[in-house]
Amino acid sequence: MPIQPLKQELVSFLDPYMPESDGEQKQEKPYVILTYAQSLDARIAKSKGIRTVISHGETNTMTHYLRYKFDAIMLGCGTVLVDDPGLNCKWWPDDEDKPEHLAEISPRPVILDPNGKWKFEGTKMKAVFDAGDGKAPIVVVKKRPEVEEPNVDYLVMETNFTGKVDWNDLFVQLKSQFGLKSIMVEGGGIVINDLLQRPHLIDALVITIGATFLGSEGVEVSPLIEINLKDVSWWRGTQDSVLCSRLVRHS
Amino acid sequence: MPIQPLKQELVSFLDPYMPESDGEQKQEKPYVILTYAQSLDARIAKSKGIRTVISHGETNTMTHYLRYKFDAIMLGCGTVLVDDPGLNCKWWPDDEDKPEHLAEISPRPVILDPNGKWKFEGTKMKAVFDAGDGKAPIVVVKKRPEVEEPNVDYLVMETNFTGKVDWNDLFVQLKSQFGLKSIMVEGGGIVINDLLQRPHLIDALVITIGATFLGSEGVEVSPLIEINLKDVSWWRGTQDSVLCSRLVRHS
Repeated sequence: MPIQPLKQELVSFLDPYMPESDGEQKQEKPYVILTYAQSLDARIAKSKGIRTVISHGETNTMTHYLRYKFDAIMLGCGTVLVDDPGLNCKWWPDDEDKPEHLAEISPRPVILDPNGKWKFEGTKMKAVFDAGDGKAPIVVVKKRPEVEEPNVDYLVMETNFTGKVDWNDLFVQLKSQFGLKSIMVEGGGIVINDLLQRPHLIDALVITIGATFLGSEGVEVSPLIEINLKDVSWWRGTQDSVLCSRLVRHS
Repeated sequence: MPIQPLKQELVSFLDPYMPESDGEQKQEKPYVILTYAQSLDARIAKSKGIRTVISHGETNTMTHYLRYKFDAIMLGCGTVLVDDPGLNCKWWPDDEDKPEHLAEISPRPVILDPNGKWKFEGTKMKAVFDAGDGKAPIVVVKKRPEVEEPNVDYLVMETNFTGKVDWNDLFVQLKSQFGLKSIMVEGGGIVINDLLQRPHLIDALVITIGATFLGSEGVEVSPLIEINLKDVSWWRGTQDSVLCSRLVRHS
């Protein structure tokens, strides 16, 4: 197991913000959290197009624990194009044998790619999938591609005049068409800033804060409007802190 | 005592970052920390000119504890004009009687006001001073005013072509002329962003992070360049977290 052991206190810290177990979720919409790592100056990358590692080993393992708990992991295509992430889960409970294939415990990647900029072929995600260590993605597009890639599912969503999908509709479709009951949204900045302003769609936040300043040229998380939080809880690591909370919904 | 009791664990948490006791400091420059409260999106105010309370009671008391430990408290005139702060110290050790006058335990305010925009007269700081509960300020100006205010000390500093003082020179003058051995810099954004980029002048950071987003229109702390930290330590409050650290100095 190439990742650090999970700090046990993180399990109870995260527990109130985790999706309910199967069968209890009667909502039309999946359980959705936003989870990302930022610097003190609220940057998630040094600059657009630069992959930046902010969290340390202990919180990196937390990310894999979250991937174990969630059905799907959502990212914008910009981040996926820059980071080329595997998006699989490398954590499993201590009292269980290593799964034969990590794909069994890994979340389904959901890539937001309205304009068809990203291809599965040639990515780390594809290599991980081919090795049986991750699932194949669902790609959210506004038009079904002329040539569909093997193993990829496409979800065609209309976009509005600003080029954006209706988030609620997207989440509902992901649950009804693909059975995804819980989704963790990992980035990038555009997706997170947009969703922070939709508290009725977001069930919890899990934010890792790394002890560094990435500088004002970095990619920033700051919503257009003020957002208030409730049910706030902090975990203190050695280098990072983690905040869990819920968003206050507008009346 | 109108402030909450100090959480005892904060004393040991802050201790490594506090100035040494009198007599041990042989440096020409005072011991300088930057200390401020920010939102998750690294905003210290909702917008320019709006006073914004970010920290909660427990970290508010910490600020008064810091004021007890430091000889001076420095602020830019923009923040002082907006917030009209008293800047005195309302905390003293449990095992000591309340001081007859809070001025005895309060830091000396140092107001950076190169263009002479701020007046002591009519401020909360003046009322606090008149009541014996705070000290009179040192105002840093680039030209001695034609009419000097009673009780105010003026420190005349040359500015460079960008209108800025030489920070090192300023700190050295504050120590040599006024005997200030330790200075806590509280804001605002321009001052903090500028000083974060001068790691050789800053001995420690004490940053309170409040669990809220103030939004992208707010006043931001993010230096122009990437800044790395060392000797990182986190304190976890109920609503806020506090980071203490030192800045990595460039070689």
